[in-house]
Amino acid sequence: MIKILFPKDIKQELIFHASEIFKEKNIPFYVQHNEENVSFLASEGKEIAESLVGSVQIQEFSLPYPLVSRKFHPEDSVVSLGSVSFQKDSFTLIAGPCSIENKAMISDTAQFLSGLGIKILRGGTYKCRTSPYSFQGNEHSLEYLQEIARKFSMKTVTEVLGEDLLEETAKVADMLQIGSRNSQNVRLLQKVGMQKKPVLLKRGFMNTMQEFFLSAEYIALTGNNNIILCERGIRTFENATRNTLDIAAIPVAKKETHLPIIIDPSHAAGRRDIIPALVKAGMVAGAQGAIIEVHPDPEHALSDGKQSLNFQEFEKLLGEIRTLAQAINIQIL
Amino acid sequence: MIKILFPKDIKQELIFHASEIFKEKNIPFYVQHNEENVSFLASEGKEIAESLVGSVQIQEFSLPYPLVSRKFHPEDSVVSLGSVSFQKDSFTLIAGPCSIENKAMISDTAQFLSGLGIKILRGGTYKCRTSPYSFQGNEHSLEYLQEIARKFSMKTVTEVLGEDLLEETAKVADMLQIGSRNSQNVRLLQKVGMQKKPVLLKRGFMNTMQEFFLSAEYIALTGNNNIILCERGIRTFENATRNTLDIAAIPVAKKETHLPIIIDPSHAAGRRDIIPALVKAGMVAGAQGAIIEVHPDPEHALSDGKQSLNFQEFEKLLGEIRTLAQAINIQIL
Amino acid sequence: MIKILFPKDIKQELIFHASEIFKEKNIPFYVQHNEENVSFLASEGKEIAESLVGSVQIQEFSLPYPLVSRKFHPEDSVVSLGSVSFQKDSFTLIAGPCSIENKAMISDTAQFLSGLGIKILRGGTYKCRTSPYSFQGNEHSLEYLQEIARKFSMKTVTEVLGEDLLEETAKVADMLQIGSRNSQNVRLLQKVGMQKKPVLLKRGFMNTMQEFFLSAEYIALTGNNNIILCERGIRTFENATRNTLDIAAIPVAKKETHLPIIIDPSHAAGRRDIIPALVKAGMVAGAQGAIIEVHPDPEHALSDGKQSLNFQEFEKLLGEIRTLAQAINIQIL
Amino acid sequence: MIKILFPKDIKQELIFHASEIFKEKNIPFYVQHNEENVSFLASEGKEIAESLVGSVQIQEFSLPYPLVSRKFHPEDSVVSLGSVSFQKDSFTLIAGPCSIENKAMISDTAQFLSGLGIKILRGGTYKCRTSPYSFQGNEHSLEYLQEIARKFSMKTVTEVLGEDLLEETAKVADMLQIGSRNSQNVRLLQKVGMQKKPVLLKRGFMNTMQEFFLSAEYIALTGNNNIILCERGIRTFENATRNTLDIAAIPVAKKETHLPIIIDPSHAAGRRDIIPALVKAGMVAGAQGAIIEVHPDPEHALSDGKQSLNFQEFEKLLGEIRTLAQAINIQIL
Ligand SMILES: [Mn+2]
Ligand SMILES: [Mn+2]
Repeated sequence: MIKILFPKDIKQELIFHASEIFKEKNIPFYVQHNEENVSFLASEGKEIAESLVGSVQIQEFSLPYPLVSRKFHPEDSVVSLGSVSFQKDSFTLIAGPCSIENKAMISDTAQFLSGLGIKILRGGTYKCRTSPYSFQGNEHSLEYLQEIARKFSMKTVTEVLGEDLLEETAKVADMLQIGSRNSQNVRLLQKVGMQKKPVLLKRGFMNTMQEFFLSAEYIALTGNNNIILCERGIRTFENATRNTLDIAAIPVAKKETHLPIIIDPSHAAGRRDIIPALVKAGMVAGAQGAIIEVHPDPEHALSDGKQSLNFQEFEKLLGEIRTLAQAINIQIL
Repeated sequence: MIKILFPKDIKQELIFHASEIFKEKNIPFYVQHNEENVSFLASEGKEIAESLVGSVQIQEFSLPYPLVSRKFHPEDSVVSLGSVSFQKDSFTLIAGPCSIENKAMISDTAQFLSGLGIKILRGGTYKCRTSPYSFQGNEHSLEYLQEIARKFSMKTVTEVLGEDLLEETAKVADMLQIGSRNSQNVRLLQKVGMQKKPVLLKRGFMNTMQEFFLSAEYIALTGNNNIILCERGIRTFENATRNTLDIAAIPVAKKETHLPIIIDPSHAAGRRDIIPALVKAGMVAGAQGAIIEVHPDPEHALSDGKQSLNFQEFEKLLGEIRTLAQAINIQIL
Repeated sequence: MIKILFPKDIKQELIFHASEIFKEKNIPFYVQHNEENVSFLASEGKEIAESLVGSVQIQEFSLPYPLVSRKFHPEDSVVSLGSVSFQKDSFTLIAGPCSIENKAMISDTAQFLSGLGIKILRGGTYKCRTSPYSFQGNEHSLEYLQEIARKFSMKTVTEVLGEDLLEETAKVADMLQIGSRNSQNVRLLQKVGMQKKPVLLKRGFMNTMQEFFLSAEYIALTGNNNIILCERGIRTFENATRNTLDIAAIPVAKKETHLPIIIDPSHAAGRRDIIPALVKAGMVAGAQGAIIEVHPDPEHALSDGKQSLNFQEFEKLLGEIRTLAQAINIQIL
Repeated sequence: MIKILFPKDIKQELIFHASEIFKEKNIPFYVQHNEENVSFLASEGKEIAESLVGSVQIQEFSLPYPLVSRKFHPEDSVVSLGSVSFQKDSFTLIAGPCSIENKAMISDTAQFLSGLGIKILRGGTYKCRTSPYSFQGNEHSLEYLQEIARKFSMKTVTEVLGEDLLEETAKVADMLQIGSRNSQNVRLLQKVGMQKKPVLLKRGFMNTMQEFFLSAEYIALTGNNNIILCERGIRTFENATRNTLDIAAIPVAKKETHLPIIIDPSHAAGRRDIIPALVKAGMVAGAQGAIIEVHPDPEHALSDGKQSLNFQEFEKLLGEIRTLAQAINIQIL
């Protein structure tokens, strides 16, 4: 990798000239502006840099994902959403239904959750389903999400299912989710990044950690560093669970990147009985939060009912989480 | 699954009324028109159908992907592209570079391939790369592809990387490819389907056959049946090859669906030495074609050089393919 | 499944007669004796039972692994080894080198560990290596293990590499380990089970939970219930870690079986930096212990050095484990 | 890797002295004798070699599995069994039931197969089953196999389930099979190798090609080079088939090793309908044979019935195989 730093007073035409050379050589490059200078970030181009007129500085380094890497950014990044933050020594809970099936159910859920002190509401709007014949989301769900979240003063997160839905989704949601199946949909990563809202990036269920961090890098290159990684289980041969929660992903991510990481025990497990064990394991392993599916009536849910907690189960789990957090000096947000 | 057939002379407001009930009940449904009648296809809704005024017919059946299933369409579908067709007892070759790096290389490759009788040219334009710092495609590649394909009278296939690139890609390409990483990008599946051009649907490297067929069903539901399935290897623990070519996918797909299936030995293998063995195995297992990466100078390719054949290697392979095809009464197209 | 209970005073020839019928019908059956009666356990055989002369009782049930299942044995099993036990609300540590390379190193390690209160010493004797050219174990290692364990009053666990090594291994070791590669070596499972010593059963790195429990059932059918399950990571596509620790295996195993389960974070991770996170996550998820590789000089270890903790690292980890255990009311054994 | 060649007239005490040094340094070494000299093969030991008195020769090279590697043995190995051979440009069929359930069924099957010209009979004796409650094999099956094979002049192959069964199995079988679950049971590999009979080594369903070749190396190091590799499918996330046949394993194995490789389409597929496609693909990809499960009445088989062909299906398949073989100049043995 190479970073070419141009002096602050560089003329626009020289930047343009440098760009042309990179394009001609088919090397992707990313222009970054800060207060002191303009720079180019690319995988190679030392010879190009040396051929440029004027006093450019060249930094060479070997890092596959420099922007999200902890090497250049040793302290933990903090991603804030209203009054809560995803940060060190804290654990933030996001909860809500898989899908916003109708107004009553999201309202009941939000009322229940906000009563328990939960500040961020999840709720599927346009759903990414394996089968076109499965429930695809309620067409009014974005409206409902907005109305209800306001009513209960909650922040919201929902998935951006496609580029064409980005605008309407971004109008409503406080945090934009990239779903597991879109984790390497690079155009969507870039377009969502450009919204300048916090992004919840789910790990692709068939992606290595390195690929996961590179997807985050696509977002970071848009200038948006408000990225929260989410480990949600990977696909393996095991079928006692829907996916296999890769608990090691948490310490690995914390070592490799400066981004917060949370877990999604619901999609990892695919069954509600083991969710408490997974959430607590995740907290102790260093995760900064969890996103949990909660439904007023899981038996009749239109999607992911088997892995959704009912209100009573969630309240019990919350008690356990708070007890554990207190015991190990983690702040619940 | 349920199919509700309305009589041909059904009034528009009754269709609208039925639609409203389905929406209210959050059941996705698909309206299909043919010469004789209008129908609704949905996963459930018998009670709704029975409650409708007028003489509707109800068909119930149990099939996860009725439109692409062979059960309702016993004969093989034929997908045509110019003078060639993907059909029974034939084997159609698609060849070309991973990326269109510049005009000269695509021109040389097309000249070489068309000289050998190859009729369909592949060429990456906007590339889906794991790293944002890897070559992302030449910005003029669509122009080059169009110009060169015309010059050598070849048909073209290239990947639609994102919804925002669909329009410009569809203007040029004769067949639109859904890449492996976008195999469950349902918005893209739907939008590409609506173009009414043949679609080359790559299997997600993390998708089961059932998921693969359901992705095809998303396309078929747009009214576009010109779908070619492409087995390109799945991700496993084995690392002697880039992916593991699932050869059984061919007979399974032929049993389950009426769509043509081809193989992509290049991405499956990730190495050029075993490509001949894979192509021939695919042909004998029943595939109707193959898409093969060919590059004038693989050692210096900007992407996937290790798995690209040079001209001499491709010509040798073509000879072997033709010999085998002749021996087993397969027509090479 | 079927259980046929014969009255206590059944004549031997009737048992023999029943056995003959099962053999003739090719149904495997297992004879179990207890104070009250003799019984046969088999997958089927109701008709046979009904045809037998005399008053047999028949129990039918649907459980793939009745002996290890929690359904017929609701309380947790306790497996004891000297003064320590693997039991509820406790966490037992097993530590030691991957291989006993020489006498000095096992002596130093045992002295260090026993000084910290560790009661069970692990140490590889005959090693199961992927390559025949890798270190296969020191030929005197069983002697060393015996001598050193006695000196420091520790209990020992080591792998039984093959049936031919069972006798000499069982003479020395207090607990016999079935390694991951032998998890479905059914003859070894049976022969090790018959030793009547506690068995540490590692999960096969490519085995589902169901297969894991069935391997335990093979052991239990020998009449040996002193089985400790060990989750040690499964093989997936991820390569940031040597294996993927399946943290969900812990709550799943605790629900399905009555056996204690521990984790092996060393072989799961394959790297020492994330071992603390994994051990703590395992404890909180409900594991009853951990087996950890410790080496006096990991950089020069003859096997698995990258995943072995040095003395200082282990002591630091032990402090963290004890702090966590105290906070959540787990007793460290 | 290093090979130390001692002169032919080396004194036994010097060999012993060298051995002692290797043992002391914990380096596994293998003594090989041929007409000209005695040699030591080990992963390292140049300094030891140089310290030895007398004129030893030292060869250094970098190959993980020198004995089975094609590099030191460029021509294909031929493994013979009676009148048939596994060799270049030929395809040898092994067929028979999963298990020898009783004498009549193995007799009928052998009669049928020998009538079709099949020369090698497979038949499970002691079976390796996931569940102890599944059929474990008929206790007389080895006798039956011997008697029937003699009667119909067929050669036999059966699995050696454990070390304790080796002697009785080796008395009967002409070729000894190492099953998939025992592929890394190193003691069994060594003991079976020492029998000096041809070995059919199944790939572990969880093993990489490199691990597969290293298992073969364990056998080769016993001095037995009559090893046939068998690709039988690997475990992946796909569940339309029991395993995923890794067709690329064939050309990879042929490039890397000099050993014959055959396929087992029955265990790969786990369903009979796609077996013809897999066998033919395997032949064209370069396999030197196939082992196929055939049963007189698959619906009532005690094991693996779903993947067994009945007589009519096998005869039809054999016709197709012969037609294909003739078309591509492969000799059917
Ligand atoms: Mn969900
Ligand atoms: Mn080890």
